[in-house]
Amino acid sequence: MTSQRVGLWLVGARGSVATTAVCGLAALRAGLAPPTGCVTERLEGVSLPAWDDIVVGGHDLVSTPYEKRAEHLARAGLLPHHLLAPIVPALRDADAEVRDGYHPTTHRGPQELAVRRLAADLETFRFKHDLARVVVVNVASTEPPVPVVPEFASLESLRAALADPARAVLPASSVAACAALLAGCSYVDFTPSTGVALPALDELALAQRVPYAGRDGKTGETLLRTVLAPMFTDRALKVLSWSGTNLLGGGDGATLSDPARAASKLRSKSDGLASLLGGPVTAPLHIDNVPDLGEQKIAWDHVSFEGFLGARMSLQFTWTGLDSALAAPLVLDLARLMAAAHAAGIAGVVPELGFFFKDPLGWDEHRFDRQSAELVSWARSLDGRR
Amino acid sequence: MTSQRVGLWLVGARGSVATTAVCGLAALRAGLAPPTGCVTERLEGVSLPAWDDIVVGGHDLVSTPYEKRAEHLARAGLLPHHLLAPIVPALRDADAEVRDGYHPTTHRGPQELAVRRLAADLETFRFKHDLARVVVVNVASTEPPVPVVPEFASLESLRAALADPARAVLPASSVAACAALLAGCSYVDFTPSTGVALPALDELALAQRVPYAGRDGKTGETLLRTVLAPMFTDRALKVLSWSGTNLLGGGDGATLSDPARAASKLRSKSDGLASLLGGPVTAPLHIDNVPDLGEQKIAWDHVSFEGFLGARMSLQFTWTGLDSALAAPLVLDLARLMAAAHAAGIAGVVPELGFFFKDPLGWDEHRFDRQSAELVSWARSLDGRR
Amino acid sequence: MTSQRVGLWLVGARGSVATTAVCGLAALRAGLAPPTGCVTERLEGVSLPAWDDIVVGGHDLVSTPYEKRAEHLARAGLLPHHLLAPIVPALRDADAEVRDGYHPTTHRGPQELAVRRLAADLETFRFKHDLARVVVVNVASTEPPVPVVPEFASLESLRAALADPARAVLPASSVAACAALLAGCSYVDFTPSTGVALPALDELALAQRVPYAGRDGKTGETLLRTVLAPMFTDRALKVLSWSGTNLLGGGDGATLSDPARAASKLRSKSDGLASLLGGPVTAPLHIDNVPDLGEQKIAWDHVSFEGFLGARMSLQFTWTGLDSALAAPLVLDLARLMAAAHAAGIAGVVPELGFFFKDPLGWDEHRFDRQSAELVSWARSLDGRR
Amino acid sequence: MTSQRVGLWLVGARGSVATTAVCGLAALRAGLAPPTGCVTERLEGVSLPAWDDIVVGGHDLVSTPYEKRAEHLARAGLLPHHLLAPIVPALRDADAEVRDGYHPTTHRGPQELAVRRLAADLETFRFKHDLARVVVVNVASTEPPVPVVPEFASLESLRAALADPARAVLPASSVAACAALLAGCSYVDFTPSTGVALPALDELALAQRVPYAGRDGKTGETLLRTVLAPMFTDRALKVLSWSGTNLLGGGDGATLSDPARAASKLRSKSDGLASLLGGPVTAPLHIDNVPDLGEQKIAWDHVSFEGFLGARMSLQFTWTGLDSALAAPLVLDLARLMAAAHAAGIAGVVPELGFFFKDPLGWDEHRFDRQSAELVSWARSLDGRR
Repeated sequence: MTSQRVGLWLVGARGSVATTAVCGLAALRAGLAPPTGCVTERLEGVSLPAWDDIVVGGHDLVSTPYEKRAEHLARAGLLPHHLLAPIVPALRDADAEVRDGYHPTTHRGPQELAVRRLAADLETFRFKHDLARVVVVNVASTEPPVPVVPEFASLESLRAALADPARAVLPASSVAACAALLAGCSYVDFTPSTGVALPALDELALAQRVPYAGRDGKTGETLLRTVLAPMFTDRALKVLSWSGTNLLGGGDGATLSDPARAASKLRSKSDGLASLLGGPVTAPLHIDNVPDLGEQKIAWDHVSFEGFLGARMSLQFTWTGLDSALAAPLVLDLARLMAAAHAAGIAGVVPELGFFFKDPLGWDEHRFDRQSAELVSWARSLDGRR
Repeated sequence: MTSQRVGLWLVGARGSVATTAVCGLAALRAGLAPPTGCVTERLEGVSLPAWDDIVVGGHDLVSTPYEKRAEHLARAGLLPHHLLAPIVPALRDADAEVRDGYHPTTHRGPQELAVRRLAADLETFRFKHDLARVVVVNVASTEPPVPVVPEFASLESLRAALADPARAVLPASSVAACAALLAGCSYVDFTPSTGVALPALDELALAQRVPYAGRDGKTGETLLRTVLAPMFTDRALKVLSWSGTNLLGGGDGATLSDPARAASKLRSKSDGLASLLGGPVTAPLHIDNVPDLGEQKIAWDHVSFEGFLGARMSLQFTWTGLDSALAAPLVLDLARLMAAAHAAGIAGVVPELGFFFKDPLGWDEHRFDRQSAELVSWARSLDGRR
Repeated sequence: MTSQRVGLWLVGARGSVATTAVCGLAALRAGLAPPTGCVTERLEGVSLPAWDDIVVGGHDLVSTPYEKRAEHLARAGLLPHHLLAPIVPALRDADAEVRDGYHPTTHRGPQELAVRRLAADLETFRFKHDLARVVVVNVASTEPPVPVVPEFASLESLRAALADPARAVLPASSVAACAALLAGCSYVDFTPSTGVALPALDELALAQRVPYAGRDGKTGETLLRTVLAPMFTDRALKVLSWSGTNLLGGGDGATLSDPARAASKLRSKSDGLASLLGGPVTAPLHIDNVPDLGEQKIAWDHVSFEGFLGARMSLQFTWTGLDSALAAPLVLDLARLMAAAHAAGIAGVVPELGFFFKDPLGWDEHRFDRQSAELVSWARSLDGRR
Repeated sequence: MTSQRVGLWLVGARGSVATTAVCGLAALRAGLAPPTGCVTERLEGVSLPAWDDIVVGGHDLVSTPYEKRAEHLARAGLLPHHLLAPIVPALRDADAEVRDGYHPTTHRGPQELAVRRLAADLETFRFKHDLARVVVVNVASTEPPVPVVPEFASLESLRAALADPARAVLPASSVAACAALLAGCSYVDFTPSTGVALPALDELALAQRVPYAGRDGKTGETLLRTVLAPMFTDRALKVLSWSGTNLLGGGDGATLSDPARAASKLRSKSDGLASLLGGPVTAPLHIDNVPDLGEQKIAWDHVSFEGFLGARMSLQFTWTGLDSALAAPLVLDLARLMAAAHAAGIAGVVPELGFFFKDPLGWDEHRFDRQSAELVSWARSLDGRR
């Protein structure tokens, strides 16, 4: 009989989102926490891997043990203190499955070697735990946007570039994606980094018959925008401007205080707004690093709009989120859904998972309600496809 | 050839919502303003009365001319000053079609007489302007909730009570609704008052083969709640409390500073929230009369919610709306849609118009996206029904 | 040589404010926390009791040990988890000094007996620890307003009423105040309850030559109002309305969900606003019990104001406070300042402590800056008075 | 007998602030509007020029008549429509007193000629209207910061540079300031531009025995910061970060969308915060151009602070101001106060006017309450100095 167990492999395995996912999965399995924030729990009549059937591992560059990371989460309000002790054994198991990730400055030789090393880690993990399949999810720090080069256009040209020891053609996120596909694992981009979003890697996914989805988890300001913007359009109200400010601390705040990296995030946020409102509006947007906020993300949006006879009105909101508490259950959801998609024989991009992302690959639909309906009907169709 | 013209009869014809609708219709017909806020303009492929084919009239107890009321709207930011002059002729035409409304303290004799007088006004209006049909919309001040009496249960018992000169069994809103149905006009409750929402009047609507819809126009805080609450449920986030405060001036502020009248509004707002969230939550809600705000309505909502592993987060919003600028285009939309429904032979409650209301009659669905989709598909089906 | 040690006796000794003060004092003495929020630390050149010289005790009706209460505070974000262990010995010492408080429903006999019992507890505490003086601070739950009776007018008439076994003329807060004064202790009302604010008790304080101050600690919305309102008046801007909503959980939320008790608080808040703005304004104000907020208090205020040529503008703020973290250091400050005032021979009301209170006794000045300047100059004058 | 009439000369005479001041002064003189926002009206016992004794003129580069500018203000909510007609004669008088300003790109010859031309305009204005003295107030668009050159250090070196036809050493604001001082007029910088803030011009002011003050009118976000920050320090609360976003339309929005010009404003705002809080804090700050807001300025600030035992709390506010309605009455106040200071023989910088400014010249005190108290006592001392 075939194993029903699946692997969840986290790229950026020691980061806050990944650690919250690892801790949370342990708590769910021990029956110590309800699956709040897990949308797959609401999908009735869909066969998905059970929490007990998910094994975690991952790549990272740092080696702080999960126990220590979990203590940080507890101080940040992401994990109740009383859960720390009971999940220690599970955290130690997870520690044992974290391998060194790829970083361009430490790697020697053609990038192909890096891809192969990462793929081998995945294969070892799958074999060791007798997993039916593995879902790789990228939750590493956001990279700066990468200039498009001709080698991205086809798998053949990419392969040649990867073999060239003088070049590092792929950003780290794409190295991870390439490795995942090569190892026959499905892949999810939970960040705005380039990752799998290259024609050459789409080709590889189809060749390998594995599904992929992305990108940039929709957990805060953008989630609200995709919910609120359709209200204005459905009510024929004219949005004049939509201004936003994001305050964030933690690793993300530091990462995004680098304007180049923030550019990825800001682009991902802005494109959606124009699409939602049927055209461009004045939409200044900022991301500020405010270290004292820790894991909190605070977003303030001000929407100025016009009603009948030119009447001027406004909506403003303040969102105070703990980003990892919003992202981690979605990562677990994606592990279950991608495993089911893979099992159902789906290959290439999965547009129906746009619900999860700021910049949905394969489907230019940003309206939350449409995405939500599509997710449900797609998930229900999976069983029939097997 | 049959007339294509329709009447829009406003109960509370001199109020801010009605005056904005009258001014706005005049501006639309003159090509002086775009139909911002009119959702029917977005319904492609649906045959609806043109703006030029709508004639307005109404009942009210006050007699301030529209020109004077329009000046007030201009000062309140509801009408650009430069539109005042060009619409004066249309406002004078409208003045000529306003009749004395019903008020319990001035009426003598059985309530039946009041119903007949109002119905006669409607018939005269229809005949005079050669209207194919008339849509009556109640935009009068909110009434206090009315105790349910056995006579409301059937048309027969209601008729007997109406004939009794010693009783005034119906509140003013229901007198207006009864008159509308009796005169073969469709009827819309844009307020939370009792209006048509009585079994006896439902019976009458079916007997008269006219449609009705309601109730309580969804234009501000509740609109946002019906958009935002599904986000929390679709994302499996647990709303712990949803607190709200409404500050309003103008006529509404004064009306709703009467706790009895506010009760109607508060109930209408709260029921929806529990339905949206799948159960009751702590939801304190206030309506305050703040006269200096004039026609502005300011709503502040604070939502406290829980994510993965019990993480505590919040959303707060402030909505600054000009209520009449949001309500008036919906009143015009309802005139068009109800006229089309009536023409298509629909009788009794029209649940598909729930999109417009805080307390949708005939359909306990409060989610904005579901309501919006249903409205569109229903409107598209109308032509086929004729 | 005379003892320099002083006692801080907390009425409501197991409540959140008291527990935070007890934990915080222990942490300060151990050098484990900085005195953030303690304004006396900013008073240079003023001789005040050192943290090491303060001994705590108090009255309460419940007996949950401090260690357990401290764990609750840690979960609520009021105390870092790592401080729990090191302060356990100090908490046990404090536990040993908590005596049963007075409650009208359990007391038998004339109220005089209750006063004497409480006073005896204070004397025992002072003697046992060889304290130079004791400051009693009422941080118990807010009581409903008490009707004024003729017996409150003089000490003589009050004494007679207290001796009557058939009556319970004083509310619990005033029993505590009376006991404090009788035992020669200074007294501070940190709540809006009646407490010491009766002519008869003022007479007693003067007779006993002890100082008292109050009332209702200014820690959130009102603090901001007393800072912001003077800006509008100093800039000659006309405030049209000042609307407020307070959301609170914890013990306070439950207490204030009783409209009678909320009345005390609301009156205390509203009087100040009119005084600050030079006359009454529209100022709706609500206190809502939102249990999930725990120890958090969230206040939203919306100020509508008029500038030059009638221009309409607004300010809104949201304050998210942990009330006990704001109140507890002020309680410690008051213990130091009242001890110093007592030592300096001050008797009766101390108006110069208005800085700390929503409803300052003895001085109808609500402007924060005036209060702050007065506090500093008064404190500096204390040494000279000895 | 000497004339008591004074001139108010506006640099940037056709801008929104200047036009509001001109319209407002006309309305005040006609008794059509109360002096809301004029702080001098609250200074009892101080002899200041009456509204009737103030004559307005100014420099500008555009020539749109005031009547047309006033219509724009009315649409923007800065002037009630009914005031437009009655003030037309006063606006025409003001039109007659506006002269061409200085602009570096159109000027030919040494800058000295420009200074002389502007000074001659001022002398003509003073002579024509028989004015006792003239106050020049710069309300022109904000300039980019200007690099400091050695010639700014002394009047002698500046004179030499001004005589050089090959150079344009001074920015336009300083040309205006120099001309004012040369013509014996007092001068106020209501913008963050360089203006009078150069050692050479300070020397000139002292030589000419005229007072000057500045700079950058404090009308919105910064006003609030100087009121709120002292609350945190007086309460010993530790501000961890103070983040701000400003949304503005109108001329200012367009001007400040130029990063170089915004730099002046942002520096002026940030320096004050560090001074208020006793050291630097994380304080990201943005100014965004949001044209649809017109004359409105919306500021959102988020303050994260720490209380006792490290408790984390926050304050956020949204200010919705009509900047010209806040600035214009202060401009009128400054005209009165500077005229009185000049009459009292004060020369050089007037630090006591720091109350009005974001970046107070001559006094590094940003606390609103201290500034307010100092203004009042200084103004009261003026009569005695004459």
